[in-house]
Amino acid sequence: MELDFLRWLDERLPRDPRAPLKLDDDAAQLLGLPPDRCVLTSDLLAEGVHFSLPEATPARVGRKALAVNLSDLAAMAARPVAATVSILLPRGSANETARDCYEGLLALAEQYEVAIVGGDTNVWDGPLVISVTAIGEITGRGPLTRSAAQPGDAILVTGPLGGSREAGHLDFQPRVHEATDLHERYQLHAGMDISDGLLLDLSRMMAASGCGAELRLDQVPISDAAFRLACCVTNPRAAALEHALSDGEDFELLLTLPPQDAEQLVRDPAVTLSCAIVGQVISEPGLWAVDPKGQRRPLRPAGYEHD
Amino acid sequence: MELDFLRWLDERLPRDPRAPLKLDDDAAQLLGLPPDRCVLTSDLLAEGVHFSLPEATPARVGRKALAVNLSDLAAMAARPVAATVSILLPRGSANETARDCYEGLLALAEQYEVAIVGGDTNVWDGPLVISVTAIGEITGRGPLTRSAAQPGDAILVTGPLGGSREAGHLDFQPRVHEATDLHERYQLHAGMDISDGLLLDLSRMMAASGCGAELRLDQVPISDAAFRLACCVTNPRAAALEHALSDGEDFELLLTLPPQDAEQLVRDPAVTLSCAIVGQVISEPGLWAVDPKGQRRPLRPAGYEHD
Repeated sequence: MELDFLRWLDERLPRDPRAPLKLDDDAAQLLGLPPDRCVLTSDLLAEGVHFSLPEATPARVGRKALAVNLSDLAAMAARPVAATVSILLPRGSANETARDCYEGLLALAEQYEVAIVGGDTNVWDGPLVISVTAIGEITGRGPLTRSAAQPGDAILVTGPLGGSREAGHLDFQPRVHEATDLHERYQLHAGMDISDGLLLDLSRMMAASGCGAELRLDQVPISDAAFRLACCVTNPRAAALEHALSDGEDFELLLTLPPQDAEQLVRDPAVTLSCAIVGQVISEPGLWAVDPKGQRRPLRPAGYEHD
Repeated sequence: MELDFLRWLDERLPRDPRAPLKLDDDAAQLLGLPPDRCVLTSDLLAEGVHFSLPEATPARVGRKALAVNLSDLAAMAARPVAATVSILLPRGSANETARDCYEGLLALAEQYEVAIVGGDTNVWDGPLVISVTAIGEITGRGPLTRSAAQPGDAILVTGPLGGSREAGHLDFQPRVHEATDLHERYQLHAGMDISDGLLLDLSRMMAASGCGAELRLDQVPISDAAFRLACCVTNPRAAALEHALSDGEDFELLLTLPPQDAEQLVRDPAVTLSCAIVGQVISEPGLWAVDPKGQRRPLRPAGYEHD
């Protein structure tokens, strides 16, 4: 199946001046990457772990496999350049599944100008697995990292949280343009994408930065999907907040920056995302909930813990 | 399991100035890659397709997963720089399997000075899968490609062929140093690694170059493993030659270069590989066997065809 598929793929892939060699060479040459600005990330999706078929179609799975990698690049404030794609295809429908996967993936690649430059395609008796590696280019400001949060920073998220595992986790938009734009125009200190839930990811960022955080739970933006999930319980608002704090796969950005910059950012008419300040970085380790009167209680980081 | 394992890996990985960020960031920054010299390749190994456990230990599988990628870089005459590793681990023995895989992989990474800069680790109910992406740096001479063979070129292989699927396919040495050294000192035209058998890979190189090839079957170097496999049949030499022509996973280099350079290369005392001239490139498409008297017959390319 591989040769037929590679022929199809070779015709389907747009020519890209950044990757001048043909797909059948042993590796792809990349042109135009400025020195010391290259970042690399890999993420793998497997049926039964990260998605279920036929709920997720192969096209949506292919799209998501690239999207999670682009979200990782966004987390570093890097512009995507190229990606490789390795797939294990279930025997029987291999050719069709491969093409569907790629159609979903390529639509996103075109949207974000990512050159698909190579990979590996195999048929087996197991379920669908797709492994993507993306290469990106950071700006002259350097990479955004998890370890650069400073006490006194405001903590900001770029959109409403929660419920994505039931709703948008297959079709989310990676915050690629927003991340590079915000990094260009604001003094961002630390950044990451929210993939395992706000509390868990925030606790990781604070640990990497040697700081702690006070969260204003009343300020955490809650998604419509989280409210829908919580509509039938005794305390729907508390349940929806729980989703916003702990559900994985929001793929919004979690950022820290000086409070005055954060205030300016949330009022900035050029920022189309519904950004919200949800707390502040403190020097004391740990996560704390603070109410509007300044009373605080410890928060236990909960979220999507990988096996 | 992921957090424990990442802690172990973070301590196990040597610090590398080419990858200054910590492993827990969303992507790895790579320093020191000269512009326009970056090449990228991905290969995935799956249990039941590319190896069987326990015949292959996880350590040998981890080593091979990196080795096949380094062989792809060697095929382009690129020096390896960094790699990412994504693994799907069978539930039950996940932690142990992950560490064993990495121990095998890291021994090879240290040997070839490859920085392991990131990846993805997941546990599932399926078999072991390991997906590696390697990034390398080509020399000022540019990449070696499949499409640059020229009529009149000598065809050269860097070592004895055949039988590796029964013997060395898990433990082979990728021809990394040899490829960059030969590319530096000789006028190599086309190159690739022999992964699917000499005849099949040569036919692909000739198709990519718009040429054909005449092979001197009596000059094809046959490995001891191929002879061992063929020892009990009626015509052992013919059977051993068949292995040398069609077995996959030799991971030797297939090169074309002007005949006078090839003659010099095979006599070069600085070349430690047992290189052999096995034929010549011709303008007419197709593969042909020629005997010492110049008689020729068509050859059908056979080898390891991927599903």
